[in-house]
Amino acid sequence: MTRRSITGFSNPVVKSLRALREKKHRKAAGKFLAEGLRLLTDARECGRLPELLVMAEGRDEHPLLAALEAEVLAAGGEVIETGADILAKITGKDNPQAVAGVFAEFDTSLAALDRTAAPIWLVAQAVRDPGNLGTMLRTGDAVGAGGLILIDDCADPFSVEAVRASMGAIFTQSIAQARWDEFLPWLRGGEGQLVAASLRDAVPYRGAPYTAPCFILVGNESRGLPEDYEMACDLRVTMPMKGRADSLNAAVAGAVLAYEVLAGLGG
Amino acid sequence: MTRRSITGFSNPVVKSLRALREKKHRKAAGKFLAEGLRLLTDARECGRLPELLVMAEGRDEHPLLAALEAEVLAAGGEVIETGADILAKITGKDNPQAVAGVFAEFDTSLAALDRTAAPIWLVAQAVRDPGNLGTMLRTGDAVGAGGLILIDDCADPFSVEAVRASMGAIFTQSIAQARWDEFLPWLRGGEGQLVAASLRDAVPYRGAPYTAPCFILVGNESRGLPEDYEMACDLRVTMPMKGRADSLNAAVAGAVLAYEVLAGLGG
Repeated sequence: MTRRSITGFSNPVVKSLRALREKKHRKAAGKFLAEGLRLLTDARECGRLPELLVMAEGRDEHPLLAALEAEVLAAGGEVIETGADILAKITGKDNPQAVAGVFAEFDTSLAALDRTAAPIWLVAQAVRDPGNLGTMLRTGDAVGAGGLILIDDCADPFSVEAVRASMGAIFTQSIAQARWDEFLPWLRGGEGQLVAASLRDAVPYRGAPYTAPCFILVGNESRGLPEDYEMACDLRVTMPMKGRADSLNAAVAGAVLAYEVLAGLGG
Repeated sequence: MTRRSITGFSNPVVKSLRALREKKHRKAAGKFLAEGLRLLTDARECGRLPELLVMAEGRDEHPLLAALEAEVLAAGGEVIETGADILAKITGKDNPQAVAGVFAEFDTSLAALDRTAAPIWLVAQAVRDPGNLGTMLRTGDAVGAGGLILIDDCADPFSVEAVRASMGAIFTQSIAQARWDEFLPWLRGGEGQLVAASLRDAVPYRGAPYTAPCFILVGNESRGLPEDYEMACDLRVTMPMKGRADSLNAAVAGAVLAYEVLAGLGG
């Protein structure tokens, strides 16, 4: 177990942590950053400990932080203390929280998902905003979903912004990443109803015949879903659009639909 | 009518437009920025023309842009052409859209609202994220709400981020800003049911006795609503929380509730 203090922006550890704010470096390292005592405590309660804990010098003492530090050290992890200015550089925030952790990325293969583990799964297709992905993870946690499946070129769910917006759900929800032509055969290899909000050949979303496990497909923020993806769905549903616009924010549409599915499945 | 070309970052017009990215300058000028042909066309179809239109030189021609330009000039507005680099400085985006407009801010007094004009109103209390406000405006448009009422210290609905996230709903929804101790007497001075998601003395949100005009109150992203605000509501409802977390993203919670209210009111 190690614990040490670091000063200086050019320290190699500081540089490698700052680099985790960029996707290519996250992928190369297979690690991601999560900030804040609340998020790290959520992780710990889900059985996920950071490999490395970075704490601000002069922080307020907190029993949860002390417990976290002890567990990280006991598990063979590393604890670093540094100045608030350096922590700000690492997290990219002017007012960083007093602690951040480095976690190993999870297995995101479809093969690792157990579709029978939950009645609802969220599926995002080419969703580009990391905040939307984090919000979908958070919604998934709330409705008791098993996880979030990312199709085609989505934002990185392990980005600082997505992790932050997930409010800890990054540690409770399974995450898988796949191309559409991998996902569809996987889905059809077992039970599962694929549902999307659509204007094509659709029924009202309210009281539609949802069945578990229900996979709720949400499309790209600007373009929505490709037509052939919509037509591959088992159920297409429409939501009322009373105004000028014909669409909702992607994460909002997914949430309204997920809560309707939850009610439909008796939840 | 005027039309001219501007080069140079230090031009006073460029400086005054860039300044509109900051709240204090927006308030001083009483103006805000909206970018993109789609947003500006939405505005035009709602009867809102920009006072000033800024277009990138070398842009692709588009009949909707030509129509917009003609209407702005006919209404006595100004049209400026400038380089893509300067437009990027004005909008703060690396890849700016080919056009941006400057609009006069709207009247945001409670007195300007007609509560009988719509069955649903969204109310945000101390919501700090401009993207959440924009998303709430967009959701309001979709459910046929009359507008968004901002209570206490919210983000600025006229910020570039909020306008962008509203996807044009900034031009269809009324917006009011008030302190709680102004809002509550105003609300009680007429018909209106105040509803919030809450864990205190609440009934299930599904099928709750919603009545029009229904005011859906959403609290701050971190702290939620103050207890006395919750207790001032006519109806407190709970939404299922199946996971570790006990809350949803503010804009998501508002949307799930708004769609339930819409269904409850027969919409």
